[in-house]
Amino acid sequence: MDIAKEIKWNKEGLVPVVVQCHESGKVLMLAWMNREALANTLKTGKPIYWSRSRKSLWRKGETSGQTQTLKELLLDCDGDTLLAKVVQKGVACHTGRSTCFFKKLGRKTIRITEKPTVDPAALYGKPKKKKRPS
Amino acid sequence: MDIAKEIKWNKEGLVPVVVQCHESGKVLMLAWMNREALANTLKTGKPIYWSRSRKSLWRKGETSGQTQTLKELLLDCDGDTLLAKVVQKGVACHTGRSTCFFKKLGRKTIRITEKPTVDPAALYGKPKKKKRPS
Repeated sequence: MDIAKEIKWNKEGLVPVVVQCHESGKVLMLAWMNREALANTLKTGKPIYWSRSRKSLWRKGETSGQTQTLKELLLDCDGDTLLAKVVQKGVACHTGRSTCFFKKLGRKTIRITEKPTVDPAALYGKPKKKKRPS
Repeated sequence: MDIAKEIKWNKEGLVPVVVQCHESGKVLMLAWMNREALANTLKTGKPIYWSRSRKSLWRKGETSGQTQTLKELLLDCDGDTLLAKVVQKGVACHTGRSTCFFKKLGRKTIRITEKPTVDPAALYGKPKKKKRPS
């Protein structure tokens, strides 16, 4: 069975992927996959997504070290959305928070529900200078 | 604060909404909202979505009776995805399953992980004939 044919790809050839912590059930992020990302993710067990802003594939954690390991990948009833249950190393959000969903909406207000636990500069900062030889 | 301005709507004026059971953490479905759906949902606490296929608003459960009550609505770091934590009455999926995500993907296989607990015909079937007066 060709799994890619079971999926309703959108006009851009993408499908949204809800990413959830396998253990806690926390929803971590929403990402997108194209056919190559899906095939590679199923093959390697290491989620790779399509960046719509950079128009390129990105392996989650390749820069930050905050990698994911796939535990389960589920397709929905309509065949147009995926749910990836993962083990998340460190934090999922580039802001240093465990999840990307931390802005609670009121009718006219937004309240931040979580503080960063990691300094984003530590995740994406410039490489540290080599230590002087002692 | 105009909440709608805090959201990055896509070209169609929509934003994806991950819908999660507030209590169990189970991811139930992915839906979409336009500005009107968002404002109405925040006002009423009863999620209403935009159907991309029917091109109209639909109050979750209006036909099936499987309604949702909003507990929390969260926006993600990029401002382009919502997470709705809800109390789901009955089943979320039109197939009669608790969740829309029940097709587990292997590299070349799909396995159904959950059987329907409700007959879809009971949710969407024709109105029952009136009982004869006794």
